Amino acid sequence: MTNRSEASDAIFASLLVALVMLIIGAVSPAWAQEPLPSWNDTAAKTRIIDFVKATTAKGGEGYVAPEDRIAVFDNDGTLWVEQPFYIQLGFVLDRVKTLAPQHPEWKEKAPFKSVLAGDLKGVARSGEKGMVELGMATHAGMTTDQFSKIVTDWFATAKHPKTGKLYTEMTYAPMRELLDYLRANGFKTYIVSGGGVEFMRPITEKIYGIPPEQVVGSTIITEYALVGDVPVLRRLPKIDFVNDGPGKPVGINQFIGRKPIFVAGNSDGDYEMLRWVTAAKGPGFAMIIHHTDAEREYAYDRQSTFGKLDKALNEAERRNWLVVDMKADWKKIFGWE
Amino acid sequence: MTNRSEASDAIFASLLVALVMLIIGAVSPAWAQEPLPSWNDTAAKTRIIDFVKATTAKGGEGYVAPEDRIAVFDNDGTLWVEQPFYIQLGFVLDRVKTLAPQHPEWKEKAPFKSVLAGDLKGVARSGEKGMVELGMATHAGMTTDQFSKIVTDWFATAKHPKTGKLYTEMTYAPMRELLDYLRANGFKTYIVSGGGVEFMRPITEKIYGIPPEQVVGSTIITEYALVGDVPVLRRLPKIDFVNDGPGKPVGINQFIGRKPIFVAGNSDGDYEMLRWVTAAKGPGFAMIIHHTDAEREYAYDRQSTFGKLDKALNEAERRNWLVVDMKADWKKIFGWE
Repeated sequence: MTNRSEASDAIFASLLVALVMLIIGAVSPAWAQEPLPSWNDTAAKTRIIDFVKATTAKGGEGYVAPEDRIAVFDNDGTLWVEQPFYIQLGFVLDRVKTLAPQHPEWKEKAPFKSVLAGDLKGVARSGEKGMVELGMATHAGMTTDQFSKIVTDWFATAKHPKTGKLYTEMTYAPMRELLDYLRANGFKTYIVSGGGVEFMRPITEKIYGIPPEQVVGSTIITEYALVGDVPVLRRLPKIDFVNDGPGKPVGINQFIGRKPIFVAGNSDGDYEMLRWVTAAKGPGFAMIIHHTDAEREYAYDRQSTFGKLDKALNEAERRNWLVVDMKADWKKIFGWE
Repeated sequence: MTNRSEASDAIFASLLVALVMLIIGAVSPAWAQEPLPSWNDTAAKTRIIDFVKATTAKGGEGYVAPEDRIAVFDNDGTLWVEQPFYIQLGFVLDRVKTLAPQHPEWKEKAPFKSVLAGDLKGVARSGEKGMVELGMATHAGMTTDQFSKIVTDWFATAKHPKTGKLYTEMTYAPMRELLDYLRANGFKTYIVSGGGVEFMRPITEKIYGIPPEQVVGSTIITEYALVGDVPVLRRLPKIDFVNDGPGKPVGINQFIGRKPIFVAGNSDGDYEMLRWVTAAKGPGFAMIIHHTDAEREYAYDRQSTFGKLDKALNEAERRNWLVVDMKADWKKIFGWE
């Protein structure tokens, strides 16, 4: 009898919920809102909505089962700002300054010397070797738990050099709406970024609604070790996997194990991922965020140090990739505008 | 008006569903069933249920938010049989025979020669080097899509040498019930196996209800390439990551990015994973499947070639890891019994 009565309770509870929803239905329920309110009513918005409608229309030609509705998003320049430099580079620069008192030798040693002098050109001159050195000095040598805390603490106060807003507020409102819209239509949303996976994971749930297990990124080697009798994972100063360019399809296959049907990027680092997703026989939607708004954000493409967009832009039309013109297609760029 | 009317439609539909459920409630609904029916009513079953109840009781001391209810399962010997040899080794042996006509040189070349002669001891004598050679010859050199098809086709007919059942029927019924039970309680279930990730992914959804993106395993290097103008991922004969022993916590951190609160394993290859999960400050439940039933399955532990269980068994009591005695704790082992 207990089972019967529990079942009945559950049913009456769900009836009650349905009735309450019926009564408050007058108050413009969330599902009745227009999707993508920060997008202008241009062709870009229409193409996105048409694709989502086609993939979710049961019995339709373009229908995709919910478990195959995988959507992948580049992060830097696609979901959040990447100028005047990658946010992760902002972390590196701040972190070198924080750690400098423990490393008096840095005052005389490139590339640390340039960082401490605020000489970004000097940092750039140190090239890839210098960047790796800075990356390892700031990202390795601690446990994964410690690094997660360092990153979380940094994001709590670190601000964008131009706007003075917290970096966590420098996400694109139209893209956050797009993530919500896709999820509301049964898509599983992933980040697939060249950035460090453990740099992004502590904040992606909060700023994008994307949980840690749906973040694919670059990694350094970690090692299981005992501290006393306590097992930890230690971050070693050695690059494991670079999730950029041809590495992006590799990373998607390794982490997700399915081919996405929706992809968004903004630079040539996304080119192979765009190609791979749209080469599939079934439905495949690709979009490129084109930074065209010098006033509200930044305008850059073919010549940019960060987020160079050249080859992918050249081939976009031919490959039927949607190019989103930030200036024309977005009503607002940031949530705080 | 359209929005209002659509909202009302949705509500009436859910009311209708609730009413229908109420009417058919008499027919013993799924949620009223006792959990874990293939488990005997021993302490093992009680400990599992107590843990799940504690983690899901809102306001209770042991409560865990749904997003942190991560459960990880070893595969070989924990979810499916690993005797008389790993199922993936069965695939290797069959595959060598299938490919042999294209490789006449294998007739005279170790370790292929031993495989073709059915000489398993000779295969074993070839050691790790021989195993890697066999693995690469059968797992690399094709695209990821091609490999997925090869594996799927193989599982459709490949049978266990002792029982004559399909390998896909050689999963443990009590463990499949445990997976279901955990998921019904808001847990996200993962496989964390030393086996090849692309060997498992084509079938884990079907046999365990675990989707490809929740399978963590060993990997070989894949490479983005163009075949004509079509992008593919090519599997190269080079090991990337071995997800075993200390590699398991590393793999969990890399793929999931959260510490699980529930872990099941059966061998010393799971030792570090068991340690890592139960070292966390919060709740952490660990269990070891002990193969004690020579009649219904196999009995083995400290001396076994496959699934050696020694160190983890020694420390289980001290670390409060549940040791599941298959003979005593499981009513049935396979679904077809």
